[in-house]
Amino acid sequence: MAQLYDRVALIGLGLIAGSMFHAIKRAGLAGEVVGYARSAETRDVAREIGLCDRVVDSAAEAVEGADLVMLCVPVGAMGAVAAEVAPALKQGALVSDVGSTKVAVIEAVAPHLPEGVHFIPAHPLAGTEQSGPRSGFAELFDNLWCLFTPLEGTDPDVLARYKSLWNGMGANVDEMDAPHHDLVLAVTSHTPHLIAYTMVGVADDLQRVTDSEVVKYSAAGFRDFTRIAASDPTMWRDVFLSNKEATLEILGRFTEELFALQRAIRTGDGDHLHDYFTRTRAVRRGIIDAGQDTDMPNFGRNAK
Amino acid sequence: MAQLYDRVALIGLGLIAGSMFHAIKRAGLAGEVVGYARSAETRDVAREIGLCDRVVDSAAEAVEGADLVMLCVPVGAMGAVAAEVAPALKQGALVSDVGSTKVAVIEAVAPHLPEGVHFIPAHPLAGTEQSGPRSGFAELFDNLWCLFTPLEGTDPDVLARYKSLWNGMGANVDEMDAPHHDLVLAVTSHTPHLIAYTMVGVADDLQRVTDSEVVKYSAAGFRDFTRIAASDPTMWRDVFLSNKEATLEILGRFTEELFALQRAIRTGDGDHLHDYFTRTRAVRRGIIDAGQDTDMPNFGRNAK
Repeated sequence: MAQLYDRVALIGLGLIAGSMFHAIKRAGLAGEVVGYARSAETRDVAREIGLCDRVVDSAAEAVEGADLVMLCVPVGAMGAVAAEVAPALKQGALVSDVGSTKVAVIEAVAPHLPEGVHFIPAHPLAGTEQSGPRSGFAELFDNLWCLFTPLEGTDPDVLARYKSLWNGMGANVDEMDAPHHDLVLAVTSHTPHLIAYTMVGVADDLQRVTDSEVVKYSAAGFRDFTRIAASDPTMWRDVFLSNKEATLEILGRFTEELFALQRAIRTGDGDHLHDYFTRTRAVRRGIIDAGQDTDMPNFGRNAK
Repeated sequence: MAQLYDRVALIGLGLIAGSMFHAIKRAGLAGEVVGYARSAETRDVAREIGLCDRVVDSAAEAVEGADLVMLCVPVGAMGAVAAEVAPALKQGALVSDVGSTKVAVIEAVAPHLPEGVHFIPAHPLAGTEQSGPRSGFAELFDNLWCLFTPLEGTDPDVLARYKSLWNGMGANVDEMDAPHHDLVLAVTSHTPHLIAYTMVGVADDLQRVTDSEVVKYSAAGFRDFTRIAASDPTMWRDVFLSNKEATLEILGRFTEELFALQRAIRTGDGDHLHDYFTRTRAVRRGIIDAGQDTDMPNFGRNAK
């Protein structure tokens, strides 16, 4: 694939930025990738393992001369980072981000950006429960989606080039407006994460069932919850604080449905339970048919 | 490994029974395995794919002369099946089951069993989201746990031999009393399943987020919920109806914690969220250290 950007700056060197670096290199999408992370320890690790062509010691230095500046920090840090790099941005540069919520990121970032700099908010729907500079890998985005929430008046050529970058890194790209993005993600990601965190917390907290029992016998379903609930705490704190309304709305719906199922259990209404469980099974089928998961039984467990 | 039983009868030919057949054959643990399923279609499939040495057309015929009779049907069907096979059981035979709840199974099965027949309730903590006679495989139990809930006065030699069977099929065996089993499973399995079912139902039900959006963008966390929520509806209906008290207790705890996190989101209490998410991460570490899951990032997705 042809080179799309002469210089890309990655601000923040966690799972997503690290995977972007590897995916960009795999396809030769950029001339040079410059990296910066706030923590000196992270920068040292990045230099040690060759993450980025060059690792520099300030965000402003990283964006100098960059055609594409990627903000890959927790949502709550986006505004401060945008303010920090704004004076050093090259005219005509594109600024983007990989934040899990979009309304809040747009509010935090857009006001800082100077005239003549483009801004396309983006969110790759990809991740693992791991974090830090060593966690990235080139295949992370393959066949998954990256959602763009472009603002009105976005330059079509800038948008097309940026779309090519994500396609080149393996992802499919969809566009939607930022409020709808935040609602969709509240359903498919934010509320499920909160629920998983809660269930793991309950298990950890229970006096009559020991932690070692929870751990030993986790294969019965709980295991998948702990995987979700092992994700980066700072990232997720910021997600919930910045997508408050949509998350609270979906949580309200969830609680309502849960209470209905709880009543069915208490009253012994087996038909209600059976109907509900049959319906949810069809959703799973749709996800496998869409190629978003494998139907390998018990996937992963035998891979160790 | 030495042969432990001359003849094993599998009543019900779903995921667990099918996996038992393959695991028994892998290690040469039984002379003959006879199978029966209520559905003629299931029996036809079993004969076609060679599941069991012999597939017969009644439960009573299946247990004739069997040293070990495994009840592998949904929990709600255990009592009826026990009543059906009881008159045909061989003196000295061992009856066991693989039900996900144990108090209810003991209440349903024990009264039917004649003098001189042993009964050891068991529950292998293994499964996939798939079901039916084609879904079993020999490796299902490898390195996982099978929980026994033996009744008072169980013959130690019968117990030891039965433990060897599960060890021979790859599983580790633990013993506990039935009420404690049901509480532990309410935490590690039953409540997580109910929550996953609920979340998938909410997503499927929402007007402003389409099913196709839910399916396309499921990689962000929701995907793991749909896997859990694709499990067999009949089995799970029976689990909740037969482990009502423990499930309702854990659900109460879950709701309490969820409301506390919900309030933290509404009031913007980031410290509460961050502390909670940090604590749950440690539980995950314990599960990986215990060998109950792999820490391969994004496991499974790249296996398709």
